[in-house]
Amino acid sequence: MAKFRLDETDHQILNMLIDNTRTPFTDIAKKLNISAGTVHVRVKKMEEAGIILGSSLTLNYEKLGYAFIAYVGIFLQNTSQTKFVLERINEIPFVTVAHVTTGKFNVFCKIRARDTQHAKEIIFKLDDIEGVYRTETMISLEESINDKKRLMHSIFENL
Amino acid sequence: MAKFRLDETDHQILNMLIDNTRTPFTDIAKKLNISAGTVHVRVKKMEEAGIILGSSLTLNYEKLGYAFIAYVGIFLQNTSQTKFVLERINEIPFVTVAHVTTGKFNVFCKIRARDTQHAKEIIFKLDDIEGVYRTETMISLEESINDKKRLMHSIFENL
Amino acid sequence: MAKFRLDETDHQILNMLIDNTRTPFTDIAKKLNISAGTVHVRVKKMEEAGIILGSSLTLNYEKLGYAFIAYVGIFLQNTSQTKFVLERINEIPFVTVAHVTTGKFNVFCKIRARDTQHAKEIIFKLDDIEGVYRTETMISLEESINDKKRLMHSIFENL
Amino acid sequence: MAKFRLDETDHQILNMLIDNTRTPFTDIAKKLNISAGTVHVRVKKMEEAGIILGSSLTLNYEKLGYAFIAYVGIFLQNTSQTKFVLERINEIPFVTVAHVTTGKFNVFCKIRARDTQHAKEIIFKLDDIEGVYRTETMISLEESINDKKRLMHSIFENL
Amino acid sequence: MAKFRLDETDHQILNMLIDNTRTPFTDIAKKLNISAGTVHVRVKKMEEAGIILGSSLTLNYEKLGYAFIAYVGIFLQNTSQTKFVLERINEIPFVTVAHVTTGKFNVFCKIRARDTQHAKEIIFKLDDIEGVYRTETMISLEESINDKKRLMHSIFENL
Amino acid sequence: MAKFRLDETDHQILNMLIDNTRTPFTDIAKKLNISAGTVHVRVKKMEEAGIILGSSLTLNYEKLGYAFIAYVGIFLQNTSQTKFVLERINEIPFVTVAHVTTGKFNVFCKIRARDTQHAKEIIFKLDDIEGVYRTETMISLEESINDKKRLMHSIFENL
Amino acid sequence: MAKFRLDETDHQILNMLIDNTRTPFTDIAKKLNISAGTVHVRVKKMEEAGIILGSSLTLNYEKLGYAFIAYVGIFLQNTSQTKFVLERINEIPFVTVAHVTTGKFNVFCKIRARDTQHAKEIIFKLDDIEGVYRTETMISLEESINDKKRLMHSIFENL
Amino acid sequence: MAKFRLDETDHQILNMLIDNTRTPFTDIAKKLNISAGTVHVRVKKMEEAGIILGSSLTLNYEKLGYAFIAYVGIFLQNTSQTKFVLERINEIPFVTVAHVTTGKFNVFCKIRARDTQHAKEIIFKLDDIEGVYRTETMISLEESINDKKRLMHSIFENL
Repeated sequence: MAKFRLDETDHQILNMLIDNTRTPFTDIAKKLNISAGTVHVRVKKMEEAGIILGSSLTLNYEKLGYAFIAYVGIFLQNTSQTKFVLERINEIPFVTVAHVTTGKFNVFCKIRARDTQHAKEIIFKLDDIEGVYRTETMISLEESINDKKRLMHSIFENL
Repeated sequence: MAKFRLDETDHQILNMLIDNTRTPFTDIAKKLNISAGTVHVRVKKMEEAGIILGSSLTLNYEKLGYAFIAYVGIFLQNTSQTKFVLERINEIPFVTVAHVTTGKFNVFCKIRARDTQHAKEIIFKLDDIEGVYRTETMISLEESINDKKRLMHSIFENL
Repeated sequence: MAKFRLDETDHQILNMLIDNTRTPFTDIAKKLNISAGTVHVRVKKMEEAGIILGSSLTLNYEKLGYAFIAYVGIFLQNTSQTKFVLERINEIPFVTVAHVTTGKFNVFCKIRARDTQHAKEIIFKLDDIEGVYRTETMISLEESINDKKRLMHSIFENL
Repeated sequence: MAKFRLDETDHQILNMLIDNTRTPFTDIAKKLNISAGTVHVRVKKMEEAGIILGSSLTLNYEKLGYAFIAYVGIFLQNTSQTKFVLERINEIPFVTVAHVTTGKFNVFCKIRARDTQHAKEIIFKLDDIEGVYRTETMISLEESINDKKRLMHSIFENL
Repeated sequence: MAKFRLDETDHQILNMLIDNTRTPFTDIAKKLNISAGTVHVRVKKMEEAGIILGSSLTLNYEKLGYAFIAYVGIFLQNTSQTKFVLERINEIPFVTVAHVTTGKFNVFCKIRARDTQHAKEIIFKLDDIEGVYRTETMISLEESINDKKRLMHSIFENL
Repeated sequence: MAKFRLDETDHQILNMLIDNTRTPFTDIAKKLNISAGTVHVRVKKMEEAGIILGSSLTLNYEKLGYAFIAYVGIFLQNTSQTKFVLERINEIPFVTVAHVTTGKFNVFCKIRARDTQHAKEIIFKLDDIEGVYRTETMISLEESINDKKRLMHSIFENL
Repeated sequence: MAKFRLDETDHQILNMLIDNTRTPFTDIAKKLNISAGTVHVRVKKMEEAGIILGSSLTLNYEKLGYAFIAYVGIFLQNTSQTKFVLERINEIPFVTVAHVTTGKFNVFCKIRARDTQHAKEIIFKLDDIEGVYRTETMISLEESINDKKRLMHSIFENL
Repeated sequence: MAKFRLDETDHQILNMLIDNTRTPFTDIAKKLNISAGTVHVRVKKMEEAGIILGSSLTLNYEKLGYAFIAYVGIFLQNTSQTKFVLERINEIPFVTVAHVTTGKFNVFCKIRARDTQHAKEIIFKLDDIEGVYRTETMISLEESINDKKRLMHSIFENL
């Protein structure tokens, strides 16, 4: 399980793509004084090594009418049901994140909903999954930080 | 605060970009039987309306040596300090998400660290911010779901 | 789901009725320099639009021997039972308020009782509803504020 | 502290007014086979005895744009501040109910807000009252019961 | 349910008996300047009215080898079992006090044991009663106050 | 710290006095076939050894108007204040029991009050003791068992 | 259950063995000015009396790849299952300590694992034991003290 | 931070020493068919590599009068005090283990005491350390497992 080694050039390519995944490879090449082909090869290699898993848009959920965020802690009747319950959770698109956790909860989810009424429906769906014993919800009053770019840049500085 | 109206064509463009932000506009155009210029105009408009905020890579943090995820609940001495504390939190790149929340905690964060030792350092940094009264940590044993694409597709189906 | 638009005259009528529902329409009319018929039409319209749902007396429960107030949090075995349990709760007249809530409890109630003994009987009735898993009670030592009039006036100022 | 004695006629009058505070006294008189003057005297007496404190409208808060309900538990630094804090709370019209309670919280409030953002502002105002040490919020997903009429009728049956 | 009226003489008799139940009635009589017969009649009357329920020794449990005190909170599966469970608890002589309570627990007990091992046996007995769902124990490190005499004297001063 | 040794005769004497502290020594003597002098000597010896600390009446607090029982958990700012706080608690006669405890609370009290209003005053007095940081109250809905006699008899059987 | 009496010589022997169990008896003998045979006899006697139960190595678990420590609190469905559950726990070698406890948990364990993934497997094994109702985990960020030698030396000073 | 590599012979040596640290090297040598010198060299190397940190006796604390075990969770005022507080804790020999932890507590300790009274003194000492904000204690009713040997053997099987 040896880690894939990224060199300085890889870091610089990633740093540029993190800020804008659509940056043309020719722009990256020019900036780094390498050929566009090299950029292409490097990105390919990082995709094949499973470092780059894909890309996604950052949308403004408020403008799309999905301003309600909540965290839902789930208690299972028995942890042997964890895998089954996670598959059921995965069928609810409004759950964007789910973790198996230590501490109070067995599974901990993040949901995005249109409003209180919609959140209730999602929470009730979670509650009704077979093997779910009880849920506890914590509502977000404001998403103050949601930014993986600082982390990504920091990782490449620390590597 | 009227919502920006997206039409069917916008949805189809977004659906394709969500899956791969680097999809060439010419591919999108061909698929939707419209001109590449139209795609360009539509995307531009959605960017200007603040619907599309940007794009980001999905990286494999495990392979980059950042496999440790924890949620940290923060109690403040006084909520008048919320803004100040969030600015301090924002200086720690390993905090990827922070919410002002109801319930037990005043602020709720998600952190990514290299290992237990690194997590301890991050938690201690949070604890030492002026105005932070106490923190409580819940450790992720497994990130089972982390996928906003299902949500995004679902939003455009429901709009 | 467009909101019914109230104008300044509606607000003034409501502000007077909030303070005393029995204020004669002629008094309101005189004060606002409009005809009693107009007052009548306006109130009718607000009733038909479902803005005014009715009126109720404010009684002194202490003098009626009902001085004991408690909040009861209810844990359900399964949220699919919520509707059924709420119907059972609705049969107990001493429960004056019931909410489906986030956080620790599934349902959260307010009860009014004659004394500790009576409160115990009501709590036991709640506990014995099929589908109720456990209850937790918090007793009021003093009802310091119970006043919707400030809210109502404030709403009409803010509209 | 002897309780005011209500007789059967008082009960019947109250039962009618509870359902509709605007019921004309002549209607009540006809129904009970007594004179309108008697109704008037009885109501007057109950008002003077402090049994009837007033009347209020039942409005549809959802239609008025105030659909967000939360319960806020308040921890004080010291209970000697209770009176002072309650006076400050009383200045916030969106707090409709406040109790001094046993158990976890010192003071327990019910608030009505327009939405999550507005609720955050109200909670922060509570948090910033001098002497308030911390607050905990529980959000209502649905107000299933809010009905004092069943209680009132029940009281008069039991008296 | 009118309260029995005690007069000044009753109070003085009780005050003396509270401090020492074996005080001879002749001593009480002399002190209060009344006849021993009067003392006898008064005590009799208070016994018949159910004010005086009996008397008991105050023993030094430490010297008897019973120094371990714990409070045990009991959660029931269903409050309809309360009566049955209390009867089972009543069969365990080491439980000296049991209350039906509000808040976290359904029943709350005080136990006296010889030592940790003995306490464990008693707690396991409670846990094994049919209908008991779970127990939580809080151990006394020191019984600092156990004195009903101050209360009794205070009651007679306040009456 | 050797324990005082009680023999069979001591047990029998104690068993009779536990049930009724006023049982005349001549009655005890007759029943046990010993002289009244022996009973007297034995009781004296147990008093001197500190086994018998005194005697007290069992009164009916409900009939005396003191029907409200609550348990109050006290959090101290610092355990070095324990002794001082206990002395202040000891000045409140309505606190009948106080323990230094493990677990959640530093000190755990039992109080008896006339009613909710009186309980509030006592709790506020506890809250206002210097060094007391916070209190949590659990209210008794019914004192189902309060009986040290079973324990006492059981001790003498087990000795 | 009289305690075995250790004299000064026993203490000195134990003090030396505690620091290094492999100290040759001849070294101990020389230091204490007694014969090696005496040391041998004394150690034998302490082993036979069950004071010395054995000896064990202190290994560096980090270097062996077992750096992850967690405490796991276990809730049982019923304490009658305690013995059975402890036998099942005893089959998991990564549980190094297990206590029957008061308070929140029925059984409280310490586990050592290779990493988060391994910890999850162990916790799931505990969760899946028949009779285990739920578990709660607290993760160690740093083992700051793990030293029984100070205690042992202190015991022999205090004896 | 490469791990020291142990081979099969090292494992076998460790396995024998784990069971009895005083096993003569000649016995180990005979059993493994190697020279005593080899055993000596291997053990030396494992000590120098920091794998073997030392050895200790397993004593019967009950027989030594130290039967009382408790876990104490410590809340700090600020985690910047962690190092200072741990140094103070380290001066109390009755604390045998201390961890910096996630979750509810900042530091989590295990203590061994003679009895309840002694435990109280130790807990009060912890409470009085500067920077300690509050403690919570959980008492062991029975130490059911305390065995690192199973873990050690298991580690060498898994390596």
